[in-house]
Amino acid sequence: MPDDAPDCDAQAGAGLDAVAEVVIIGPGLLGASVGLGLRAAGWAGRITGVARSAATLDAAAAVGAIDGGFDDPEPALANLSGPSLVIVAVPLSGFAAVFKKIAPHQRRGLVTTDLGSVKAPAAAEAKRHLAQPQFYVPAHPMAGSEKSGPAAATAGLFRGRPCVLCPDDATDAGALARVAALFERLGGEVVTMTAAEHDARVAAVSHLPHLASVLIAQTAAAMGAAAGSAGPPDGRGAQPLQLASTGFRGATRLALSNPPMRRDIVLANRERIGEALDRFAKQLNQLRGEIRKGDHDALLARLEEAQGIRASVEGD
Amino acid sequence: MPDDAPDCDAQAGAGLDAVAEVVIIGPGLLGASVGLGLRAAGWAGRITGVARSAATLDAAAAVGAIDGGFDDPEPALANLSGPSLVIVAVPLSGFAAVFKKIAPHQRRGLVTTDLGSVKAPAAAEAKRHLAQPQFYVPAHPMAGSEKSGPAAATAGLFRGRPCVLCPDDATDAGALARVAALFERLGGEVVTMTAAEHDARVAAVSHLPHLASVLIAQTAAAMGAAAGSAGPPDGRGAQPLQLASTGFRGATRLALSNPPMRRDIVLANRERIGEALDRFAKQLNQLRGEIRKGDHDALLARLEEAQGIRASVEGD
Repeated sequence: MPDDAPDCDAQAGAGLDAVAEVVIIGPGLLGASVGLGLRAAGWAGRITGVARSAATLDAAAAVGAIDGGFDDPEPALANLSGPSLVIVAVPLSGFAAVFKKIAPHQRRGLVTTDLGSVKAPAAAEAKRHLAQPQFYVPAHPMAGSEKSGPAAATAGLFRGRPCVLCPDDATDAGALARVAALFERLGGEVVTMTAAEHDARVAAVSHLPHLASVLIAQTAAAMGAAAGSAGPPDGRGAQPLQLASTGFRGATRLALSNPPMRRDIVLANRERIGEALDRFAKQLNQLRGEIRKGDHDALLARLEEAQGIRASVEGD
Repeated sequence: MPDDAPDCDAQAGAGLDAVAEVVIIGPGLLGASVGLGLRAAGWAGRITGVARSAATLDAAAAVGAIDGGFDDPEPALANLSGPSLVIVAVPLSGFAAVFKKIAPHQRRGLVTTDLGSVKAPAAAEAKRHLAQPQFYVPAHPMAGSEKSGPAAATAGLFRGRPCVLCPDDATDAGALARVAALFERLGGEVVTMTAAEHDARVAAVSHLPHLASVLIAQTAAAMGAAAGSAGPPDGRGAQPLQLASTGFRGATRLALSNPPMRRDIVLANRERIGEALDRFAKQLNQLRGEIRKGDHDALLARLEEAQGIRASVEGD
């Protein structure tokens, strides 16, 4: 399995310049940002969108993310000839249906990738439904926004962001090179790892922080409400989160994320997230013991370790 | 017990304009910011600093936060006559020693307050060591910075920030009015509640988020390291937090806070924090159960509730 992304220029033949057409299935925030990013990078091929909703297609065309589109993958895929790239940008729950549509059109020149945030289930769906899964490369560009839909798409969404590719031993080298070239053209930093490693890593740095944010918000609100009810009985008690300030808002910002989308991600990656939450619960119980015992040294060592870990993460 | 802050203008006699001298014991980031804020607000009385370190006094004088100072509270307090205000801005561990120094100088005209972030222990120290605890008003201006020391002080540090006062039934009304006038003059939003309520509220909105940040950082690093060790055996494994992005950094920013200072705060408020962590652990275990069972509805309801709670907190 190749560990490094291929160089776009060195493999231009296998890269994006040879591709005549890109099909974006699901031109929402992420999908339409791919289209806009390709245009901004000077890529001149045809970009076709596929969306059930005419309003989505119109909006994606209006911002310049696609040249035209269809309400079903079938005609978009049937039209393709020569080197092509199909980008699956629908929620994970829609992957099976889309892969079934792609399967009969698969050939060496037609490479498929996706933009989903959990990779082992995506790869499993591909193995189950694609006729030639070696021409599919699971991908996760780690970019997003609190907004959604093609109107919120931006050409620079992937710029400087890690774009994780998860090929396996069967993945075609040319397909991998083409997908790597796509994300490099969009300005992303291509990283390659197994789907299992990806899912464990995002459970740790993305899904765990989101769920912890959710628990902090719920706990603080309940405790604030209880504290208020113990206040003066003149009906002028404070709001539950009255004293919340910048620190609280920062620590809970991820709780603002779209609930149905997040729910689906949590359940798609439930094993790895379960593992992260088990580790987290163990640390929490150790901390509770340290506080109960008034263990000055253990507590200080913990706070210093966490400070060092956090300080090591660039980009602040 | 008065529930609302007195109006600065309506009680100007009892307020800050009648005060001839302010003594800041511990002119660090917070203490020196009080001095700078008073000057910026046009308050013209004398500001005296007390710090063991000559360098701290020099730095506080250099930025204009104090007019002069002493290395011990004794001479600063002995010099006072007429309406005065003593601000205790040392760490909680130093309160007992400072209160003992203040005790023999207490009189109706000498009002004492503090800037500490846990109030029941501060009030208990005052009851134990002050001769006239009715002239002491526990206070917590909810402002700060990752920096420390007088050189980092700013006149606007308290502007728009909640400044919590925690009088009890014995607190002198004039003393309360004077301390309220201080924080209003600094631009703060004065809020009054019991020390117990304050400590429960900050456990919920400040201490819990900090400790959760610490646990997220530790858990993510350990899980990232484990994921990396499962990677390709070519020695080019990713860093433990390689995929960490904006969301992770936001959720863990509080883990950057000064460890010894935070350790002292945690132990000072250990009962209320213990209560917050118990509630948090209970929510965490419910969440783990929901994920294990794949309970779509419960998970969605939880994410929606947390989103609503977070959205209700202003100032984003």
